[in-house]
Amino acid sequence: MSLPTRRPGSTVRVRVREVDGGTVRGRADVVATEEPLEIRVGWPGAVPRSLVVTMRTPGADFELAAGFLRSEGLLTDPDDVVRLAYCTDPALRAEQRYNVVTVDLARPLPEAPTARYGAATSACGVCGKESLDELELRGCSPVAPGPVLDSALLCALPDRLREAQNVFSRTGGLHAAGLFTADGTLVRAREDVGRHNAVDKVVGWAFLERRLPLADHVLVTSGRAGYEICQKALAAGISFVAAVGAPSSLAVDLAERFGMTLVGFLRGERYVAYTHPERLTELR
Amino acid sequence: MSLPTRRPGSTVRVRVREVDGGTVRGRADVVATEEPLEIRVGWPGAVPRSLVVTMRTPGADFELAAGFLRSEGLLTDPDDVVRLAYCTDPALRAEQRYNVVTVDLARPLPEAPTARYGAATSACGVCGKESLDELELRGCSPVAPGPVLDSALLCALPDRLREAQNVFSRTGGLHAAGLFTADGTLVRAREDVGRHNAVDKVVGWAFLERRLPLADHVLVTSGRAGYEICQKALAAGISFVAAVGAPSSLAVDLAERFGMTLVGFLRGERYVAYTHPERLTELR
Repeated sequence: MSLPTRRPGSTVRVRVREVDGGTVRGRADVVATEEPLEIRVGWPGAVPRSLVVTMRTPGADFELAAGFLRSEGLLTDPDDVVRLAYCTDPALRAEQRYNVVTVDLARPLPEAPTARYGAATSACGVCGKESLDELELRGCSPVAPGPVLDSALLCALPDRLREAQNVFSRTGGLHAAGLFTADGTLVRAREDVGRHNAVDKVVGWAFLERRLPLADHVLVTSGRAGYEICQKALAAGISFVAAVGAPSSLAVDLAERFGMTLVGFLRGERYVAYTHPERLTELR
Repeated sequence: MSLPTRRPGSTVRVRVREVDGGTVRGRADVVATEEPLEIRVGWPGAVPRSLVVTMRTPGADFELAAGFLRSEGLLTDPDDVVRLAYCTDPALRAEQRYNVVTVDLARPLPEAPTARYGAATSACGVCGKESLDELELRGCSPVAPGPVLDSALLCALPDRLREAQNVFSRTGGLHAAGLFTADGTLVRAREDVGRHNAVDKVVGWAFLERRLPLADHVLVTSGRAGYEICQKALAAGISFVAAVGAPSSLAVDLAERFGMTLVGFLRGERYVAYTHPERLTELR
């Protein structure tokens, strides 16, 4: 069986025309790659099944797959991961093989998530509070006390993350998630066209490295902090989330309820603390 | 049956602590609301079924539901929409009722989308090119010639969109999509915590108003232009997409293939034209 030949890169070259005031010029440019990734899951005695297809920037695909399963609560023990592999299905064309990751598990998924479509619903309404209740049912518990940071250290993190953003610096258009220790050391940075994928890549790496829970760490996200980002951080036990952009109401509710410090608008020397300011020296 | 009583607003008040250099102060703040919306679909003789749950900012929920169905290719004719309503299920609590929209259709959905999970896959790999092939199979065809804009007009659009962004101006944290005519008139602007939802709200409005296809319009998005944004624009027949942020590789491929003009980094007097520059006076 031949190995995949064309591995997709994280950027693609394109020809563009740029207009700046009265000036027009043609030039080469670089854009961030966006390609589908299909995550398949298998276990002994079962044919691997497709779990999800997500649009992502190629790179750290195994970490993305593991992080997705971890964030969704489908995987809790790294020992359950027997093998992570790109698809070698000979029926796939070369450019498809690097877009399919199969996660071989030691045992069946703890619970098969039911597909929402087709599920007859009578009175199962939804609201933000219930979304948070569901996280508790799924086993999410309040985060540990975690680190205490001073503001100068916190304000330095976005620049450190930006310096690690390889693809952003070339394309100007990628989200990043960075995992820092309490002394401001960058442990892992990941980029993706999807903000949530960048977080999954970081969490998946830590999960596979048996570093969860990440209570003593700070997660910095280059964009806004919505429910999804905070939910993924919670699943990884992260006690401190700092976003360059704004948080949403449900992100604030989640952080408040689960004891997480949530900071937004982290720019220059300024930031806004939305929840649990006791992890910030100046706000204790 | 009592009507829903507590309609969620687009913003929520919170107490925050703000740090700016050496200054610390407590103050009231406003964050964008994020709440789940469940979209249910029913037709004669069928119990309404749950199609999807999406996190969104409340407001224009009917347009969001219709736009989602239209963008996904599940709905093509506005006459098929018999009724759009919030749930009046007495078993739902008040705060849940405005988080469920039921779309009553005149006929069954053209095709039931199969849930990916549980579908045994053998050799159905994925790649960007196939994602575009699939759009063709779903009935997406190249966009019409559409408008020709001059650069000065194009560059004025982000400011006009920003002026219409009510919630952003209060929270600093919301995506927007704006639909403009070729002379730069803002037809509809919508905001959401999700960039894709903002586009669905705009498209859904136009769909319900029987204004599709929108070939003579320009869609401006406040963030980046990924595959999903361009795919939704294509489904609505929009021939010109302009983003304040960067495009992705697959967005560029989609725009190139379907004849759409894709502009990125639309800021001040500068922009970058990625595809089909023939719709820009200075680039013809």
